[in-house]
Amino acid sequence: MKLGMIGLGRMGANMARRLIQGGHSIVGFDPDPDARKALESDGAQTADSLKALVESLPGPRNVWMMVPAGDITESTVGDLLALLDAGDTLIDGGNSNYKDTVRRAKSLAEHDMHYVDCGTSGGVWGLAEGYSLMIGGEPAPVEALRPVFETLAPATDQGWGHVGPPGAGHFTKMVHNGIEYGMMQAYAEGFAILQHKQEFSLDLHQVAEIWRNGSVVRSWLLDLTARALDENPTMDGIAPWVDDSGEGRWTVAEAIDLDVSAPVITLALLERLRSRDKDSYSDKLLAAMRNQFGGHAIKKE
Amino acid sequence: MKLGMIGLGRMGANMARRLIQGGHSIVGFDPDPDARKALESDGAQTADSLKALVESLPGPRNVWMMVPAGDITESTVGDLLALLDAGDTLIDGGNSNYKDTVRRAKSLAEHDMHYVDCGTSGGVWGLAEGYSLMIGGEPAPVEALRPVFETLAPATDQGWGHVGPPGAGHFTKMVHNGIEYGMMQAYAEGFAILQHKQEFSLDLHQVAEIWRNGSVVRSWLLDLTARALDENPTMDGIAPWVDDSGEGRWTVAEAIDLDVSAPVITLALLERLRSRDKDSYSDKLLAAMRNQFGGHAIKKE
Amino acid sequence: MKLGMIGLGRMGANMARRLIQGGHSIVGFDPDPDARKALESDGAQTADSLKALVESLPGPRNVWMMVPAGDITESTVGDLLALLDAGDTLIDGGNSNYKDTVRRAKSLAEHDMHYVDCGTSGGVWGLAEGYSLMIGGEPAPVEALRPVFETLAPATDQGWGHVGPPGAGHFTKMVHNGIEYGMMQAYAEGFAILQHKQEFSLDLHQVAEIWRNGSVVRSWLLDLTARALDENPTMDGIAPWVDDSGEGRWTVAEAIDLDVSAPVITLALLERLRSRDKDSYSDKLLAAMRNQFGGHAIKKE
Amino acid sequence: MKLGMIGLGRMGANMARRLIQGGHSIVGFDPDPDARKALESDGAQTADSLKALVESLPGPRNVWMMVPAGDITESTVGDLLALLDAGDTLIDGGNSNYKDTVRRAKSLAEHDMHYVDCGTSGGVWGLAEGYSLMIGGEPAPVEALRPVFETLAPATDQGWGHVGPPGAGHFTKMVHNGIEYGMMQAYAEGFAILQHKQEFSLDLHQVAEIWRNGSVVRSWLLDLTARALDENPTMDGIAPWVDDSGEGRWTVAEAIDLDVSAPVITLALLERLRSRDKDSYSDKLLAAMRNQFGGHAIKKE
Repeated sequence: MKLGMIGLGRMGANMARRLIQGGHSIVGFDPDPDARKALESDGAQTADSLKALVESLPGPRNVWMMVPAGDITESTVGDLLALLDAGDTLIDGGNSNYKDTVRRAKSLAEHDMHYVDCGTSGGVWGLAEGYSLMIGGEPAPVEALRPVFETLAPATDQGWGHVGPPGAGHFTKMVHNGIEYGMMQAYAEGFAILQHKQEFSLDLHQVAEIWRNGSVVRSWLLDLTARALDENPTMDGIAPWVDDSGEGRWTVAEAIDLDVSAPVITLALLERLRSRDKDSYSDKLLAAMRNQFGGHAIKKE
Repeated sequence: MKLGMIGLGRMGANMARRLIQGGHSIVGFDPDPDARKALESDGAQTADSLKALVESLPGPRNVWMMVPAGDITESTVGDLLALLDAGDTLIDGGNSNYKDTVRRAKSLAEHDMHYVDCGTSGGVWGLAEGYSLMIGGEPAPVEALRPVFETLAPATDQGWGHVGPPGAGHFTKMVHNGIEYGMMQAYAEGFAILQHKQEFSLDLHQVAEIWRNGSVVRSWLLDLTARALDENPTMDGIAPWVDDSGEGRWTVAEAIDLDVSAPVITLALLERLRSRDKDSYSDKLLAAMRNQFGGHAIKKE
Repeated sequence: MKLGMIGLGRMGANMARRLIQGGHSIVGFDPDPDARKALESDGAQTADSLKALVESLPGPRNVWMMVPAGDITESTVGDLLALLDAGDTLIDGGNSNYKDTVRRAKSLAEHDMHYVDCGTSGGVWGLAEGYSLMIGGEPAPVEALRPVFETLAPATDQGWGHVGPPGAGHFTKMVHNGIEYGMMQAYAEGFAILQHKQEFSLDLHQVAEIWRNGSVVRSWLLDLTARALDENPTMDGIAPWVDDSGEGRWTVAEAIDLDVSAPVITLALLERLRSRDKDSYSDKLLAAMRNQFGGHAIKKE
Repeated sequence: MKLGMIGLGRMGANMARRLIQGGHSIVGFDPDPDARKALESDGAQTADSLKALVESLPGPRNVWMMVPAGDITESTVGDLLALLDAGDTLIDGGNSNYKDTVRRAKSLAEHDMHYVDCGTSGGVWGLAEGYSLMIGGEPAPVEALRPVFETLAPATDQGWGHVGPPGAGHFTKMVHNGIEYGMMQAYAEGFAILQHKQEFSLDLHQVAEIWRNGSVVRSWLLDLTARALDENPTMDGIAPWVDDSGEGRWTVAEAIDLDVSAPVITLALLERLRSRDKDSYSDKLLAAMRNQFGGHAIKKE
């Protein structure tokens, strides 16, 4: 089918390519002309404005946004609200907060437009291996997009699903990322323990390869960890600095709102915050306290 | 090759079967005659005592123990020390504490016997899919056992490896289990958050199936979780009681000994302890404290 | 000075009493006539409506709210906005979220009214021992209330302070409660460890009394814990169920917003959530997973 | 009474001084002649060897060790075993692991000597304010030492107690220190949150002073924290490096052995380990994983 794709960054461009390879017809838009040119060479039509993109699509239109969550998604939705018609469907494939999604879906529904949220997992590997898609929305517009989901997913009938009403897709993706934080931290801690056990001089890449086959902890994240350990077993030159992109925080907040104790997901997030605090005030104060009550020496900076 | 297998429980019997299917010749021993009979019907020879087992093997012998860690392993090693000869190799495929393994290996070395520790992962699925094997020991006896490892592992050259000196195999398996605790807890927390979000009425089995294909959190544990959610999505009739078998505790203790902060693995263990403490003294005391300073009501038992 | 007191529950009535004992003149309001009557017998004037209370105070008025945070505070502020005049001061002595306080202060400022937030600690003991007061607001109205703060605090010049602009008082009180959660949990865990060490048959009340004198962990919370352990050392009849009242959650959310890793305050909150989840879905799922991969028995409900 | 004091460091010398001030007669030993000389000027007799110290005491002797836990305590006990006589009492006032204490008490009992363990809290302030003493041992030798405990404690009948058999004193002190870790971390996190809230420009020393009077979190640790914040509110020049001295680790290990979930004490320990790991392998690996699956940029060292 014919689909507009807004946002031709790492994720959007790859998804457009996978759709083109699957026989779909894509009109792409990105403010960066180089990004548009790159996609044209892969067989897409492009537009140099949202307006031009909307006008190039036959109604009822399907427009997929793959833009950063937050302000850019908000303004893009606002702009499209003025350009789209009743019956059109807008898909948010990014990592929006599900509460924003619920609000936006209501706003579009007032104009008889459809809003579909698609939590998308797969990262840079999705082009080749397919994306895992968690879809929220009203049944009709989701069903209308079936050919698109079947192409984007790893297999026609696997790796995608309509999980609930608007917001349910982004909610599910949010929790997916929370789990991801916990799993990553579990591996990272385990390999750190192995690495510190100097008396055994373990080859961490070898261990990861053994575990990849037949062990209880085998996973795609372990496959990637094995690659990272192969390329750079000592993690040479890599700063111990771990970013986070919002979904972990939202998962922690949501768990607390739901009265669910989720210590592992929570601690995985806190460790990322901790990794970036090289000058911890609390640790300094602890050192000062120990000095106060016990006369313990303070390490000077 | 010809191998003695001591302990014909769930793990030992399956490993013997996989070895037989791979063309090896097995002499099995278990104190339970039914366990011996069951293995005989799969093509093994059996012995009704350790002594008979040892006598039925040609030297230099290879004897694999697959018995519970702790006292039973300790006494079995003691008994075999009196039965084996210099040049023989004893393999511990169970979940022994690596410190015990280091000690036992030294003890056998004094009698010119070899001790090989094989951390074994794969659970009840290992018979069909192969086991992941983390092997510690001296190079010569490990190399001599190569045909056995190649058969037990998922593939001839994958899923097994000689990771270091005696104890290194069990150490690596211990950390493997620590990671397993963390991963399991991450999934469990995530699905609990989904389950509590009643407004979306999510189908947890469906979500697990979507994630199994293309998502960042896909793994073998997720495959099994999907099975569990398919069989019993509400977890009906299952008590919220999670056992632990020792390796998580050892991983936590080891991390602290190595000055490695491993919050996720640690909290995953603590949650298991917490799951079994239905009458938490600390929570009662917290309720009593709140009553003391704020006059907050106490819930009566 | 003459002061209106809205909300004559446990906290508000005691604060009114302490003010009366300090020579101030109080007009109290509570929708409950019994609460009004009780305060009258302690020397207060009362009013049977907000309007009557406001009319009974000379301008510029000082009105202190001691009502539950959230909806009731919101509606009370709204009602008073219509009754008060420019130059009047409204004090929120409750546990409001500081973000609401910032918003309300702006709203009153548009009518040239003052809003002062007073984080109040001390619980049921405040009447006798004085309250610890963390005050936010513009300098002039805070200074005008000095006689009130000097009376409510444990001493004229101690236990109260103007910490910053509107919201700063409630923010500081919020963090105070976060610390309180962490301290309470630390004591509760410690006493639980002592209680489980059956071989030493420790007398927990005795231990608390020893610690109250000269130890590093002496504190007012320990004094109260000693009382609780004296009254009921086995915590007999008390359910292991720990409520929380919001400020712990806000502290955790704020820490994450500020990129501060606060694991102890966070885990103290999670333990309270956990204490109330007697049927943990995540623990059930963990048990089911263990059964799936290892054939481990599931405990039935 | 007459008492030998072995170890005239910060703790031992101060305890000897408090005993002298209380009318006791002290014979002190320390391998450092300066330490001996310093105590002599405070009115103690000293000895230049363990043998001389033992010989200078009338039987049945009471010898108090105030030396570092571990190897030095072990060798001192060994040396004294050869010097003391049946009926003599050896007191360990240091921070020994209670398991060592149980073992040593048995060893001395075989020679009809008494071993008393005295968990001692109070730090550098104990000289002036008295020490909190948690005492383990057989009833008779503990009772014989009553005059010593009455002098060392803050008051004759407060701040000390015989809590159980040999080992119970050190066990109780161990848990005391675990609680201390949790409380310290709770305060440190709270003040760090206040410090990061730049929009309120809070004066942390002022906040601490407010809380010291009438608040729920008032404590001796808060008094000391207020001092630290007064001296150096920005923690200028203090490295974020927090040592630990063993008892926190033991508390965590003991809690796990007893199947008690103690997340706050545990996380307080882990934060100390984390504070000293400036080059976290796990954080580097997390950054590498994020790059592998999502193409996220790695920060270079």
